[in-house]
Amino acid sequence: MENNNSYETGAEVMDQLFSKETQNYMQHIKEISPDFWDMIVSFGFGDLYGRTALTLVQREYITLTSLITQGAFDQLRVHFHASLKIGMSQQEIIEIIIQCAGYVGFPKAVHAMGIARDVFKSYEAV
Amino acid sequence: MENNNSYETGAEVMDQLFSKETQNYMQHIKEISPDFWDMIVSFGFGDLYGRTALTLVQREYITLTSLITQGAFDQLRVHFHASLKIGMSQQEIIEIIIQCAGYVGFPKAVHAMGIARDVFKSYEAV
Amino acid sequence: MENNNSYETGAEVMDQLFSKETQNYMQHIKEISPDFWDMIVSFGFGDLYGRTALTLVQREYITLTSLITQGAFDQLRVHFHASLKIGMSQQEIIEIIIQCAGYVGFPKAVHAMGIARDVFKSYEAV
Amino acid sequence: MENNNSYETGAEVMDQLFSKETQNYMQHIKEISPDFWDMIVSFGFGDLYGRTALTLVQREYITLTSLITQGAFDQLRVHFHASLKIGMSQQEIIEIIIQCAGYVGFPKAVHAMGIARDVFKSYEAV
Amino acid sequence: MENNNSYETGAEVMDQLFSKETQNYMQHIKEISPDFWDMIVSFGFGDLYGRTALTLVQREYITLTSLITQGAFDQLRVHFHASLKIGMSQQEIIEIIIQCAGYVGFPKAVHAMGIARDVFKSYEAV
Amino acid sequence: MENNNSYETGAEVMDQLFSKETQNYMQHIKEISPDFWDMIVSFGFGDLYGRTALTLVQREYITLTSLITQGAFDQLRVHFHASLKIGMSQQEIIEIIIQCAGYVGFPKAVHAMGIARDVFKSYEAV
Repeated sequence: MENNNSYETGAEVMDQLFSKETQNYMQHIKEISPDFWDMIVSFGFGDLYGRTALTLVQREYITLTSLITQGAFDQLRVHFHASLKIGMSQQEIIEIIIQCAGYVGFPKAVHAMGIARDVFKSYEAV
Repeated sequence: MENNNSYETGAEVMDQLFSKETQNYMQHIKEISPDFWDMIVSFGFGDLYGRTALTLVQREYITLTSLITQGAFDQLRVHFHASLKIGMSQQEIIEIIIQCAGYVGFPKAVHAMGIARDVFKSYEAV
Repeated sequence: MENNNSYETGAEVMDQLFSKETQNYMQHIKEISPDFWDMIVSFGFGDLYGRTALTLVQREYITLTSLITQGAFDQLRVHFHASLKIGMSQQEIIEIIIQCAGYVGFPKAVHAMGIARDVFKSYEAV
Repeated sequence: MENNNSYETGAEVMDQLFSKETQNYMQHIKEISPDFWDMIVSFGFGDLYGRTALTLVQREYITLTSLITQGAFDQLRVHFHASLKIGMSQQEIIEIIIQCAGYVGFPKAVHAMGIARDVFKSYEAV
Repeated sequence: MENNNSYETGAEVMDQLFSKETQNYMQHIKEISPDFWDMIVSFGFGDLYGRTALTLVQREYITLTSLITQGAFDQLRVHFHASLKIGMSQQEIIEIIIQCAGYVGFPKAVHAMGIARDVFKSYEAV
Repeated sequence: MENNNSYETGAEVMDQLFSKETQNYMQHIKEISPDFWDMIVSFGFGDLYGRTALTLVQREYITLTSLITQGAFDQLRVHFHASLKIGMSQQEIIEIIIQCAGYVGFPKAVHAMGIARDVFKSYEAV
């Protein structure tokens, strides 16, 4: 469906964002629906993230905020890891959550902060 | 954290973000609830936006994304103006909406894009 | 639980909450779907609001909060009128909105406050 | 609309949709609030699902989509089982999730797909 | 970005769903962001709606439900027209809204029913 | 509005609402972001809950409803405990959930009822 370049671009973006372990885990989607997997890689990471007008860091600002706002906390955990992997600081992530508190209310911000803490701890533990 | 300066900081941030017309319009909130107005200025713009760890542009990335995700389109219009006022480009705003399409779906992104178009047109018309 | 009295109870509750004008306006729902209208009256206002364990004022606390949280601002306007009709004060409504600011964020609270102001003004204008 | 038969109709619909195990599990709601249980059976499954203008399969299209859109993933799991029980195919469920990706964004669609995979696996394992 | 067939398929699907007037109106999106327009046509209507595993009517069940659930009422109006254009009956649309009442609550269902009534009236008026 | 006493007021409100165990657990937020903790205590519990125009019980009506409506079920559990601690009855909580069923749909209400049951059981178990 997607042309060859979208998929390749998407795969490269995913290499920048996600560890090998995370990418392996994501394969369960490919297993159940190869078409949906193709859309995620080609459209999601290729056609959207692959656009060069914004940096990956700028895109993660958008992603983290949208996930906090909609309460998609499983994906938020994955993208906290991604944000750190591309060079965002822990303080930057904390600031995004704090700004969100005013826009989505404290419950979702508190939930997000708890996940951030877990993610940050997981690096100290290594 | 809260201190006598929160209100002053908030008022300064609002001067950077909003035109005089917009600030005058916002006074209808002050009229009905001076306490709520105080919270908006002191907490919202003072204690949150006033934090120096992120730039105003970075904060508007968060604000625009959260407003699109929750479908708060009236406030989105105000913050499109604010984003342009602090130096963001039209293209940057368009990119944020496009990235949101993948995270919140096309309906809200299309709605946001229509508002962006109206806002951009309003400057050409001047 | 449901019985012949549900509709009657619902109609009585609606008389307490809504003016004749509002009730006439609501007839457009009956026009398009008599079954849906029946559900609204019998289930919504009869079986839910008609339960005596909470007062109508307590139920409006719940209703206003849920409408603000989900951004259902058209219905919010109707229920601001209903809240005043059953004896809640303007200050009580303002307090509910302020408490909501912390739970759903400022954008929806600000939107709600603007509608409250319009509703309150409409009584002064009479 | 509501009548003595609502509960009976609802109980019959629930027999078609849910296994005995699931129905037993649902009894925890009856335990804490017999009135709420009555509403679920009589209104939810009797008065809504029991309407003959749509088939149960058509109603599950609506149910699955609404649950994905609002991120109600616990109930989604139950209704994936229900959808299969009334004869929908795995492919049909996958297609609903894919269509949802465009309307609610990828995070909720990915979450739903992961649950679909778990549910489908649970049948293979038997 | 999208390959040639996705766009063509999408354009064909849009011809089936939307009147010329609606399609002309949609051009304001193309005007402000040709890339976003391309995504809507190629990905949204080509790659998603263009999948043959579900009929267009089945897809509109999903679309209407998702729009009601997320409160995207502007797009809902457009898709009520689309649903009628591809052969769905007014009664079918009313049934979808009624089923949604149990899943998303009455406020959004009532709002949707009001819009349905407007749309249905617009055909009588012709 | 904000003053040196906001933190003290907030701490007192938290003592009324939350057990020592819950307050200790909440310290994980303080650990990761002392500033965010300060906002929660000073603004959330001091400046919002500390306002005397509504009672704590009235504020919990708002809090529970907003949490159910937005599907913030982790925080809901904490506030079910808080509601009981300040003297609300189990029946009162059940009534709030039932009223919510009509406003946010059954899925979130059912989820909330299951959590209420767990919380109520935890007291019997003592």
